[in-house]
Amino acid sequence: MKSVKKIQFVNAEDKQEFSKFPTKAGRRSLSRSISQSSTDSYSSAASYTDSSDDETSPRDKTQVNSRGSNDFCVKNIKQAEFGRREIEIAEQDMSALISLRKRAQGEKPLAGAKIVGCTHITAQTVVMIETLVALGAQCRWTACNIYSTQNEVAAALAETGVPVFAWKGESEDDFWWCIDRCVNSDGWLANMILDDGGDLTHWVYKKYPSTFKKVRGIVEESVTGVHRLYQLSKAGKLCVPAMNVNDSVTKQKFDNLYCCRESILDGLKRTTDIMFGGKQVVVCGYGEVGKGCCTALKALGAIVCITEIDPICALQACMDGFRVVKLSEVIRQMDVVITCTGNKNIVSREQLDRMKNGCIVCNMGHSNTEIDVASLRSPELTWERVRSQVDHIIWPDGKRVVLLAEGRLLNLSCSTVPTFVLSITATTQALALIELFNAPEGRYKQDVYLLPKKMGPYTNINQLIFYILFSFDSFIFLLPF
Amino acid sequence: MKSVKKIQFVNAEDKQEFSKFPTKAGRRSLSRSISQSSTDSYSSAASYTDSSDDETSPRDKTQVNSRGSNDFCVKNIKQAEFGRREIEIAEQDMSALISLRKRAQGEKPLAGAKIVGCTHITAQTVVMIETLVALGAQCRWTACNIYSTQNEVAAALAETGVPVFAWKGESEDDFWWCIDRCVNSDGWLANMILDDGGDLTHWVYKKYPSTFKKVRGIVEESVTGVHRLYQLSKAGKLCVPAMNVNDSVTKQKFDNLYCCRESILDGLKRTTDIMFGGKQVVVCGYGEVGKGCCTALKALGAIVCITEIDPICALQACMDGFRVVKLSEVIRQMDVVITCTGNKNIVSREQLDRMKNGCIVCNMGHSNTEIDVASLRSPELTWERVRSQVDHIIWPDGKRVVLLAEGRLLNLSCSTVPTFVLSITATTQALALIELFNAPEGRYKQDVYLLPKKMGPYTNINQLIFYILFSFDSFIFLLPF
Amino acid sequence: MKSVKKIQFVNAEDKQEFSKFPTKAGRRSLSRSISQSSTDSYSSAASYTDSSDDETSPRDKTQVNSRGSNDFCVKNIKQAEFGRREIEIAEQDMSALISLRKRAQGEKPLAGAKIVGCTHITAQTVVMIETLVALGAQCRWTACNIYSTQNEVAAALAETGVPVFAWKGESEDDFWWCIDRCVNSDGWLANMILDDGGDLTHWVYKKYPSTFKKVRGIVEESVTGVHRLYQLSKAGKLCVPAMNVNDSVTKQKFDNLYCCRESILDGLKRTTDIMFGGKQVVVCGYGEVGKGCCTALKALGAIVCITEIDPICALQACMDGFRVVKLSEVIRQMDVVITCTGNKNIVSREQLDRMKNGCIVCNMGHSNTEIDVASLRSPELTWERVRSQVDHIIWPDGKRVVLLAEGRLLNLSCSTVPTFVLSITATTQALALIELFNAPEGRYKQDVYLLPKKMGPYTNINQLIFYILFSFDSFIFLLPF
Amino acid sequence: MKSVKKIQFVNAEDKQEFSKFPTKAGRRSLSRSISQSSTDSYSSAASYTDSSDDETSPRDKTQVNSRGSNDFCVKNIKQAEFGRREIEIAEQDMSALISLRKRAQGEKPLAGAKIVGCTHITAQTVVMIETLVALGAQCRWTACNIYSTQNEVAAALAETGVPVFAWKGESEDDFWWCIDRCVNSDGWLANMILDDGGDLTHWVYKKYPSTFKKVRGIVEESVTGVHRLYQLSKAGKLCVPAMNVNDSVTKQKFDNLYCCRESILDGLKRTTDIMFGGKQVVVCGYGEVGKGCCTALKALGAIVCITEIDPICALQACMDGFRVVKLSEVIRQMDVVITCTGNKNIVSREQLDRMKNGCIVCNMGHSNTEIDVASLRSPELTWERVRSQVDHIIWPDGKRVVLLAEGRLLNLSCSTVPTFVLSITATTQALALIELFNAPEGRYKQDVYLLPKKMGPYTNINQLIFYILFSFDSFIFLLPF
Repeated sequence: MKSVKKIQFVNAEDKQEFSKFPTKAGRRSLSRSISQSSTDSYSSAASYTDSSDDETSPRDKTQVNSRGSNDFCVKNIKQAEFGRREIEIAEQDMSALISLRKRAQGEKPLAGAKIVGCTHITAQTVVMIETLVALGAQCRWTACNIYSTQNEVAAALAETGVPVFAWKGESEDDFWWCIDRCVNSDGWLANMILDDGGDLTHWVYKKYPSTFKKVRGIVEESVTGVHRLYQLSKAGKLCVPAMNVNDSVTKQKFDNLYCCRESILDGLKRTTDIMFGGKQVVVCGYGEVGKGCCTALKALGAIVCITEIDPICALQACMDGFRVVKLSEVIRQMDVVITCTGNKNIVSREQLDRMKNGCIVCNMGHSNTEIDVASLRSPELTWERVRSQVDHIIWPDGKRVVLLAEGRLLNLSCSTVPTFVLSITATTQALALIELFNAPEGRYKQDVYLLPKKMGPYTNINQLIFYILFSFDSFIFLLPF
Repeated sequence: MKSVKKIQFVNAEDKQEFSKFPTKAGRRSLSRSISQSSTDSYSSAASYTDSSDDETSPRDKTQVNSRGSNDFCVKNIKQAEFGRREIEIAEQDMSALISLRKRAQGEKPLAGAKIVGCTHITAQTVVMIETLVALGAQCRWTACNIYSTQNEVAAALAETGVPVFAWKGESEDDFWWCIDRCVNSDGWLANMILDDGGDLTHWVYKKYPSTFKKVRGIVEESVTGVHRLYQLSKAGKLCVPAMNVNDSVTKQKFDNLYCCRESILDGLKRTTDIMFGGKQVVVCGYGEVGKGCCTALKALGAIVCITEIDPICALQACMDGFRVVKLSEVIRQMDVVITCTGNKNIVSREQLDRMKNGCIVCNMGHSNTEIDVASLRSPELTWERVRSQVDHIIWPDGKRVVLLAEGRLLNLSCSTVPTFVLSITATTQALALIELFNAPEGRYKQDVYLLPKKMGPYTNINQLIFYILFSFDSFIFLLPF
Repeated sequence: MKSVKKIQFVNAEDKQEFSKFPTKAGRRSLSRSISQSSTDSYSSAASYTDSSDDETSPRDKTQVNSRGSNDFCVKNIKQAEFGRREIEIAEQDMSALISLRKRAQGEKPLAGAKIVGCTHITAQTVVMIETLVALGAQCRWTACNIYSTQNEVAAALAETGVPVFAWKGESEDDFWWCIDRCVNSDGWLANMILDDGGDLTHWVYKKYPSTFKKVRGIVEESVTGVHRLYQLSKAGKLCVPAMNVNDSVTKQKFDNLYCCRESILDGLKRTTDIMFGGKQVVVCGYGEVGKGCCTALKALGAIVCITEIDPICALQACMDGFRVVKLSEVIRQMDVVITCTGNKNIVSREQLDRMKNGCIVCNMGHSNTEIDVASLRSPELTWERVRSQVDHIIWPDGKRVVLLAEGRLLNLSCSTVPTFVLSITATTQALALIELFNAPEGRYKQDVYLLPKKMGPYTNINQLIFYILFSFDSFIFLLPF
Repeated sequence: MKSVKKIQFVNAEDKQEFSKFPTKAGRRSLSRSISQSSTDSYSSAASYTDSSDDETSPRDKTQVNSRGSNDFCVKNIKQAEFGRREIEIAEQDMSALISLRKRAQGEKPLAGAKIVGCTHITAQTVVMIETLVALGAQCRWTACNIYSTQNEVAAALAETGVPVFAWKGESEDDFWWCIDRCVNSDGWLANMILDDGGDLTHWVYKKYPSTFKKVRGIVEESVTGVHRLYQLSKAGKLCVPAMNVNDSVTKQKFDNLYCCRESILDGLKRTTDIMFGGKQVVVCGYGEVGKGCCTALKALGAIVCITEIDPICALQACMDGFRVVKLSEVIRQMDVVITCTGNKNIVSREQLDRMKNGCIVCNMGHSNTEIDVASLRSPELTWERVRSQVDHIIWPDGKRVVLLAEGRLLNLSCSTVPTFVLSITATTQALALIELFNAPEGRYKQDVYLLPKKMGPYTNINQLIFYILFSFDSFIFLLPF
């Protein structure tokens, strides 16, 4: 009976509270909208999933894996073999994590750890989960996003015996039901939390306060989740040490400059098949994100100019060979407009009005409000969805502007994040778990920490970077350490 | 009754003859194999098509467009609106063709032309067909490839009244049936042929010799088709002037250096989600294709080395900052191996044996035999298809090599060709048709020609390049001509 | 009578003290050695000077400028016209300073300032001095380096009426004599000090303590001088506010990344005429200096690899497309070895022994000890000075290693520093003087300061950067401030 | 008695004839003007020479080398040791030539060759001459340019016993006297000619016709000289086979793209100390020279745009990421204007009038007339020579334009040509001599030839390129041949 499985909110307020939370910025909030999920729309694995016409809710199915266990809830356990292949592909470019697995699996530094996790369920995160298991941990897992789960991969994970509760296209109710099933297991008490967005943490904090108090540590990856942790800490309610993975040097260095350098090309190509050579591009903002975008576009023959209000960044743009311009001066000639300022209304309706026919507009910055998309939702303009994540906005005179991802983050919406980068974040998360789990009494108080630079054998930033470096090629890189 | 529509070969020999022809190298031959079609697997429009579960053959359907015509055969005429959107997207980056359309549609230089065409049926080719119509031509069209048709786009074309006979997944018999329906129309005699691969030309030559003799000209785009034309010409059987578009300077300049510069990144990214930064790549061959690949990969932070036997190219590689190496010396350290030599067995089984785990191998060169794929089909190796166009070849010790597109051309199999480039080829084809149709008596004999450098108002190479240049941005490019 | 002009040290200890000071690191200390002056050897103006065979000491000459003044001491006042041309060239690329001059000369923010200055006397510094004068200051000047003075330029400055005491090839005694003449002027008491190296400051502090106490501020540009100021401050003896120009953001950004990007090419080219294309280069250290060197060399076709011990920098090198290696692994193949680590003995004698014939070795780092040059001064090796700043070290088997600038800073010794960069430093110095001179009582204590980010109309860092940006091209750069 | 040594022209016509010849384009013609010699002004060796105040003509001196020979005429035989060092430096980067020397000196393929040569006398050419001697040849040498001789290097050559007649600053009469002394030696009859400009060839042809007829071959390097040979050949007067080195593939590939890539930076830096980062540069012409200039400038952070009238080149410029503009549209904003079109009056007086203050103008193209320098020699403009090869042209309103090398070739006038490049030309010359000297009867007629692609063991182009490639680094480059 379906109602049995219905998530039980204690009361209406409670439900409201869990609903109101802004979840992982730029990811879950996006994908809960009626537009297609950001994360999976260009996922290469989508084809396997798409063919499934099974409309039964996983909550209503009875499935058993080949070990005889039914302690999981996925779309279709029979897709496990397909999912295993995706995981194997992912492993190819996640050698930082594999290095850690090989080095530490003898010692099992996570033996005794009982981890509840809430992340995207993709091939890459499963490589991490399986690494945690290889290091001795017991894990139970759920999805941080109702659209981003790769069903085959979830099946593959369930097949290995890790209880996982996730499928693509969960409802809001499903979402919390899964989290609850993940935490609430007879005779099994979590002592570590790995979270991405803070929903799991909040659920445990609210619903299972006694469990929460006994947790040895929380590892959080997202901006939103970290923000919530700092709020808890400020309010004196954080009774557990937490590790902020989001602000680790590796994540900052990669997610901005290097990642954007590749994903700007990927995102534009997959959505528009544009040829970069000879295209006139204006990049708004010359911070790390802007620098990455400009480097790649210039290298492929685009003619790039910059808008920038910070004088130091403007000077760097000049010295790097870019014209620094006012957007309004150049807007009429541009083929592509890319925002990465972190500010609001960088591209205004007035500027959208002046763009030439066919101009592509997209956002690589943090905020969804860099392009004034709201101003385009007016009666005189026609919206035409020409592809997933691609809208033509048509002016009365027939002029079209090509808007990508409705102004949301292009690299999350329209390109894949390279496995290599995910590997670095995942390795950082694993090291954070090891550190918190093994830290001697008193090293960490009830506060939010960054991964230390130097410390235990596995758990400092330098060691992490060595793992990454080793992943390039152990034969060539003979670093003197 | 289906048999009514069955293509009627005159006799068995005839059938054999039409079957034996190697068709458009690297395109049709590939896609007729049981592996998935090369051209469409990464087409962004695939999603619309995939959802169709209609298994009825288009030949057995009765369809009528909104003008009341049934002189076409497509998958589903109702998809026309979706297809129109794809065409509109394509038009955005095909301004060379649009420039020609705008400039010449008043004068209608193709008035009176009756063109039978056989090309891929994609959004981009339809922009060309509709340009021909705008310039005054009557057109009938069919597909040169049994897998590459975008069904929605074919529907959109049929909806406008152009008789088109093509769908994705034709059988061999369907293929010839469509060609015949295209040519054989009551009271309509073609006087121009536009071909891609030579199948249509051959069919007309064999089946409708009297039509063939009256044709004013043939325009052929592919290597294979051009080769066939030269053979006919040598044999004294080419009674019609033909234009070789394949060897025009614009195609040579674009399809190699500039196209490969972008498609190597796209092809690798879509299949493997690899991060380029820090990857060790060996590119075999430093011709135009190799130069394009190396430029892009180096720019995105890959560490690239070269193998090259031509001393001039080797010297260029050195001066451009690449190490020139022997493949066997470096094979063990490489993350990616790319062939673009035009020769056979550049990557041998012995070298495949020595690659490290996870090494990606692919081919950007002409031949499908640059990588010795045949040697990998041996019992001790396990093949695992992990994604469309991606195989893991697994050695007994567990080592995996990632083979893309089974060694076929990566950029045709796994990336999209930028619309901009297709626009150039399409404009060249259109100019060639105009030139042949309007040429005064005696300018062209029964021979194969290249588009002249200077001549009529629309039909020379320089004019073509102006169209292309104008397409960049008419405001900025104030060339003094 | 010459003895009259002999500098009078109060006593022997005193003399010893002034002699012992390490002066401006990498500049004066170098050029006081018997080897040729670092700064001028590749100065383009050298030709005018070289032809002079006048051996009389300027101290023994009587010279009068066209205004009738003899309050200066330069090599030859008649060279003023040549020097003026050098100054005019310099002005071309110093528009930040010229912008300041134009904007502020009406208001004369330095009216009343009496500045004693001790810097290199070059065309670029004279543009600064003349800017100070244009803003209302009275100036007296001397050289911070016994070799770096451009005689013609000093003459041109003297000709305009600024008392300047400097010539190329001063003795130690001349050096202090000039400083004293600069400070010690009847009825004229300095109220500001602009110093480069700290010698002038120290002389005033020791010899004219009453003047020192009345000074409104000191502006210091060099590492050494800033270090001395901090020592004074720590000892409680700094009774004057001082401005540290060396650590300003503009200097840090320019003197490292952008400057080195250009000067590595210039330094290598002028000394060795090497062609960069195809050369194998190892750059030791991937900090800002190393990044600048690598960018330039890679762009010109060199094949560059890196040694680096800091994991973050090593990771950046990987992601930027450089092999990260152990020096000992690659040393035998390298054509050029460049150190920029800031550490000692990066290139050891053992590695020098293993270099191939003709290998070029040079240093771009701070320390003169990155290359173990001392180890090369052993009897079995022959040194051959083949050009200014270029030595061949010859091994017994005939192998030659080409050592540049005896391991000192290549860009100071063998290339010119672009005028544009000097302009930025000079503008910073001028703004610092304005700020200190005009600051309201109490804003600055007896301490060492950095130029504030925001403050008065001329005197903050942002304003400075605007001046620099405007200097690119006021028409193109329409920054929104 | 001086008159004894005066060159004896047979008659006035004769003298006129030898005077009228346009000699080596862009080299000798330039340096004979009263302006300073193009080739040596930035030669690093100039310092040794400058100090010489010996005004006696070498023709009036009696000098003997250490072997007791006086069969030479140089400035000062005592400078031989300094010159030897320059030669040793040059050898470091001439390994193609050294490879040839090592490989062939056992076999002595030039044994019996008696070569008269007329080239620039620099360290690099002496490495070639000494290679010819090492391969068995007897040589006598003279200078092809009255200004370009490095006196010390000539002394070093004379010291080894090669009769050489050359000094820096020859008069016209000296020039022909040296050529005559070179050819006219008692009992020694030249059987090979190596020429650069055609003056030596012409002298022998006119003055020593019987020697000319017995010569086995002529090798000519310059455009002018090759042009003269073709004229002779057309007129049926070329009774000797000649080898055109100027048009060999190696020279074409290097002297344009790769050389200009480096020399544009060097030429601008040495004359103006300009910082490239952020500078706005227009390059007129996007042929090989333009491509080289643009690549380098863009890489160092200049903002480069292009003017181009050839549509293919314009398209390449677009695809390579440069704005293609009209010069008149951008001229007001440019910091640097570079011509490399091969056409006349690319930069007109009107455009010079519109340039901004401080704009640098220079020419990298063939012709000295790309910039309309003549139009600047008008009374309202003031010329100020601020440095060797650098003029300020001053407008009545004070605006200055910085003109380099009076519009002549920048890379010949203001930068050094990399030794590596000279090595390639020199090796080509040596191979051409070997080929002509050893060719079997009948292989070469009385005509002008290019070096064959494949032939004898030393003497084909492929072998030459191998020598060059080996010179990069024999350990890394394991080419499969």
